[in-house]
Amino acid sequence: MTQDVDGNTSLIAHIGYPTGSFKAPMIYNPYFEHIKLNALVVPIGVKPEDFETSFPAIFRFSNIHGALITMPHKVHVLSFLDEISTTAKVAGACNAVRKDADGRLIGDMFDGEGFTRGLLRKGVTSAGASALVVGSGGVGSAIAASLAAARVSRLGLYDVNVAAMQALGERLQSHYPELEIELQTNDPAGYDVLVNATPLGMKPGDPMPIDMARLSSDTFVGEVVMKQEMTPFLSQAVARGCKVQVGVDMLFEQIPAYLEFFGFRTTTADVLRDLAHIHY
Amino acid sequence: MTQDVDGNTSLIAHIGYPTGSFKAPMIYNPYFEHIKLNALVVPIGVKPEDFETSFPAIFRFSNIHGALITMPHKVHVLSFLDEISTTAKVAGACNAVRKDADGRLIGDMFDGEGFTRGLLRKGVTSAGASALVVGSGGVGSAIAASLAAARVSRLGLYDVNVAAMQALGERLQSHYPELEIELQTNDPAGYDVLVNATPLGMKPGDPMPIDMARLSSDTFVGEVVMKQEMTPFLSQAVARGCKVQVGVDMLFEQIPAYLEFFGFRTTTADVLRDLAHIHY
Repeated sequence: MTQDVDGNTSLIAHIGYPTGSFKAPMIYNPYFEHIKLNALVVPIGVKPEDFETSFPAIFRFSNIHGALITMPHKVHVLSFLDEISTTAKVAGACNAVRKDADGRLIGDMFDGEGFTRGLLRKGVTSAGASALVVGSGGVGSAIAASLAAARVSRLGLYDVNVAAMQALGERLQSHYPELEIELQTNDPAGYDVLVNATPLGMKPGDPMPIDMARLSSDTFVGEVVMKQEMTPFLSQAVARGCKVQVGVDMLFEQIPAYLEFFGFRTTTADVLRDLAHIHY
Repeated sequence: MTQDVDGNTSLIAHIGYPTGSFKAPMIYNPYFEHIKLNALVVPIGVKPEDFETSFPAIFRFSNIHGALITMPHKVHVLSFLDEISTTAKVAGACNAVRKDADGRLIGDMFDGEGFTRGLLRKGVTSAGASALVVGSGGVGSAIAASLAAARVSRLGLYDVNVAAMQALGERLQSHYPELEIELQTNDPAGYDVLVNATPLGMKPGDPMPIDMARLSSDTFVGEVVMKQEMTPFLSQAVARGCKVQVGVDMLFEQIPAYLEFFGFRTTTADVLRDLAHIHY
């Protein structure tokens, strides 16, 4: 059940393609109903070839409040914005857009914020810590950007796509000149936090993204895959005595950040999880 | 409460500006929930200057099913359609658009259909009857078009805007060459049905749209104003012994016609009225 829609409903356009696997409407809308906020997350399927015309048209709607941007538009959307957060600049992508009172479009990126907020809730302070992010694709870049924003002091990057990893390193360094960056390292030894932002370790028999023998029980280990709670990679980390964060934690932990961004009353990930009409 | 919105929800865009007084979401969405149809009427505010870009963009959304078109776009939308019903052509306006499987946009007009369906439910058969429509504006033209489609044999038209009345008469005659049309008559004597499609008679002290002394108790009298049930005009008709139809009846009577047009399971006006989250 979502709140009654009427002529005064503010729209959050959830823009992506295809739309079938969208989760946000089932998380936000029950919360909006709960706090009696007349707003609605509306799934809107926009094909890549239509984005250039559809995105500006959507933001001309008189009742548009903002948008959640998902695949395949997270990078392309950057060129349509008036203001871009540092995190979105470093990530090289944007997944939330707000229309301000003066009509300016403000973009931010929260894919990595769920990870750092989840760390904090589990007692891991990012500020001053060291982190290794394996995988410099979309989600790896977002997590690296959020870890930098949360003031880690040392950040290791690794990707088989060396150019992507180098580009991420350069963006990080230009926005965080004090940050110690180690390029193309996949040795987790000595890192406080390890993130697997690659597809490896999802399926039984997958090679591990790192040499697990080098993983200390002191390292906090995170995963981005949401389709299953415990991936083979996480299971091995647990077996080695590590504390872990499952992928879906990122999903719910990031919603309060969006709510703040959109200027809505915020809440905790636990409340959102209880209200959501999806379950893992 | 409306049905859970998710990535498989089909959208009916309710397009107009401003959106504040939109009623359709509170009528359709509770019904969609009731029949467990994963569809949603979404209010979308489109200013006149944006229609040309927004309307085609909306119909490029991959999950768009159709649109309800309201003020101020009902006339302008005609130039964006691939196929237009006779009723919409005669009315000179369109308030419903469906995207067919082949991508073609089909437009129809149901503002008058609610009136003729309401007549039928009250035992008045339009076929072969005579009707006087006072007012040749948007709603008057739509009712005249629907009465012609319902095969009235004689139709009287009246408007202080003679050009609008004449243009409506020409459109009617070109599509219904057998129809007997009387131009610029506001004498209700001898008509089976009288419709007030003018703003006159809304407020106490308003001049009546016709000479009420010429109104026979045999004439069925309809009103299009929805803001109040019994207008002074209707009250006078009732005092003269006429059967009447209030404006809001038109609203609920026309919804089944839209449901059929969109290919959804249909129902009765009474069911819709019971389920609706608005009440008059």
